[in-house]
Amino acid sequence: MLEATIRRIGPLNGAAMKEAERHQDQLALPLGSLGRLHELCIHLAGITGNPRPEIMNLAIVTMAADHGVAAQGVSLFPGEVTGEMVANFARGGAAINVLARHVGARLTVVDIGVAGPLAELPVKEDDSIRLVYRRIAEGTMDISQGPAMSRDEALRSLETGIRVFEEEMAGGLDAIGTGDMGIGNTTPSSAIAAVLLKKDPADLVNRGTGIDDDTLKRKVEVVAKSLNVNQPDPDDPMDVLCKVGGFEIGGIAGVILAAGANRTPVVVDGFISTAAALLASRLNPEIKNYLFSGHRAAVEGHELMLNELGLKPMVDLGMRLGEGTGAAFGLSILSAASRIGREMLTFDEAKVRKSDSSEQ
Amino acid sequence: MLEATIRRIGPLNGAAMKEAERHQDQLALPLGSLGRLHELCIHLAGITGNPRPEIMNLAIVTMAADHGVAAQGVSLFPGEVTGEMVANFARGGAAINVLARHVGARLTVVDIGVAGPLAELPVKEDDSIRLVYRRIAEGTMDISQGPAMSRDEALRSLETGIRVFEEEMAGGLDAIGTGDMGIGNTTPSSAIAAVLLKKDPADLVNRGTGIDDDTLKRKVEVVAKSLNVNQPDPDDPMDVLCKVGGFEIGGIAGVILAAGANRTPVVVDGFISTAAALLASRLNPEIKNYLFSGHRAAVEGHELMLNELGLKPMVDLGMRLGEGTGAAFGLSILSAASRIGREMLTFDEAKVRKSDSSEQ
Repeated sequence: MLEATIRRIGPLNGAAMKEAERHQDQLALPLGSLGRLHELCIHLAGITGNPRPEIMNLAIVTMAADHGVAAQGVSLFPGEVTGEMVANFARGGAAINVLARHVGARLTVVDIGVAGPLAELPVKEDDSIRLVYRRIAEGTMDISQGPAMSRDEALRSLETGIRVFEEEMAGGLDAIGTGDMGIGNTTPSSAIAAVLLKKDPADLVNRGTGIDDDTLKRKVEVVAKSLNVNQPDPDDPMDVLCKVGGFEIGGIAGVILAAGANRTPVVVDGFISTAAALLASRLNPEIKNYLFSGHRAAVEGHELMLNELGLKPMVDLGMRLGEGTGAAFGLSILSAASRIGREMLTFDEAKVRKSDSSEQ
Repeated sequence: MLEATIRRIGPLNGAAMKEAERHQDQLALPLGSLGRLHELCIHLAGITGNPRPEIMNLAIVTMAADHGVAAQGVSLFPGEVTGEMVANFARGGAAINVLARHVGARLTVVDIGVAGPLAELPVKEDDSIRLVYRRIAEGTMDISQGPAMSRDEALRSLETGIRVFEEEMAGGLDAIGTGDMGIGNTTPSSAIAAVLLKKDPADLVNRGTGIDDDTLKRKVEVVAKSLNVNQPDPDDPMDVLCKVGGFEIGGIAGVILAAGANRTPVVVDGFISTAAALLASRLNPEIKNYLFSGHRAAVEGHELMLNELGLKPMVDLGMRLGEGTGAAFGLSILSAASRIGREMLTFDEAKVRKSDSSEQ
């Protein structure tokens, strides 16, 4: 299933992009004056194959899991908070609930490996939140002591992401955003990025939820130790995922790969989601064609991953929360770009005369 | 009326801001992790006096007028395009129609001084666009030859903006965005900014709709000449407006001042709207408390004005269109920030345990 998905990821549709560009150039405005919106619309044409893409049906998938490494005191928050936040998602009271509602995206929260009791089912029955249980295990093992998970579990985390994407697609989907929840998950994300980018852990590790200098120092040591203990093979992304990854990171990578296989634009959230995208890009580099970065996260190391993936974030609001909050803004901008292509009139249609220099 | 409006603009409500900050700090997320959204929400509390401000009812006012100076060949487009674009707004087919719809803002287009026949009334009767006729004259006089308008006309343009704002307020309004349409209007905007910032015209003049090097050189000369011919008094904003301004620029400044007087946040669009905001800030510097910059416009000179006003744009999408398109994105982000304050649960409400360091 993973192999089949990876194989289906292909290049952009050049003909659709050319036609989209021709159409953008005829819109009743000074040539190119909507800047990035034009580029995004043309890119969306290349992904969907439709020169006037429709990006109205939006979904955010937030993957939640726990991390054995949280026991090393790498986060400000105790591990129990992961499950408590899943319950908060179900209640509709978290930042991602608010921002998903704001941009008109539906939200699916996946418990792919939270520890402890299952979160209560949604109190709200307004279809704005779907909570699904796909636990692979109650959290990963501590990566500073050994592998996070077995190779089979790594595969299952990816395939869970693929399945969740396909369920979303069945409900009607034009673009998807990714999000994460997992106390301690900047630690495995930093480890993944350090391996794949062949960088020093200190270049990737950041303050996550807001840790102090001492904790930051410990976190760098924990990442270094996890790489040392596990010796993940940088040329084998599955090895990296199972040795120093996390269930939600594998799940997000699965969502991303499935989006590419189904020619659906995917808006990557911040640090954790971008680490998952990096992992996905090592399974098939063509996936980069389908990726957008929702926002520039206000944490060290994110930039290095964005550069490697060739992504330019859509907004920069100094956010560093995760959950998919940065992806929400990006989805809204993608949708706006697509509406420019679909709803604006051309010079001819609007009966507006062109400038001399744009008549050719 | 103008005097009364200007006098009503006061400081931010410090008590509401303090209470808003306290509330933001209790939300179930790592302290400060929504970055600018927290700051915006606190700022909105200071404007509205409500620690949990509601910013849901959004409007964009796009002021349209013609400019005598367009005869000097400073734009790619002929002057007739101003009126044609007003007709396009009425038809719902312009970029601002699309983006206003996208962010859920209603749109009011004001013909405050377009030349030629009146635009057709809206074809669409879906309440998404209101077109109002408040022509002060059929365009300004050519500023390279003498004053743009009389002092009485300058006053009327400001008061027209104030009245339009008050009409919007009567329809229910939490935040307003400004926009402009007027072939040639980057020329008077550059002139206003050059006078008020005491800068060289070459520092402010830009390519507007996309003019070439020769036209750019001519445009710098036209601005220099208009300052030389008119000798506007930098300490008298009304003198600057009537000598080198435009009707839509005065109208936008009026909307901005009225927003401040009525404790309503106002999202300033790009180059032309920011020149109007600069003018308004010289009538009462307290207006700066109420201003937000929607986006960084992809034109020279915008940055200089933003710095003077102490504004940091909310998005940077390489846009340089005007019409209020940058304000649309900013309004949506303000609304998102307010919803974080109103709709998120606190740690206690969500039953999520706090980190040790955030418990004080």
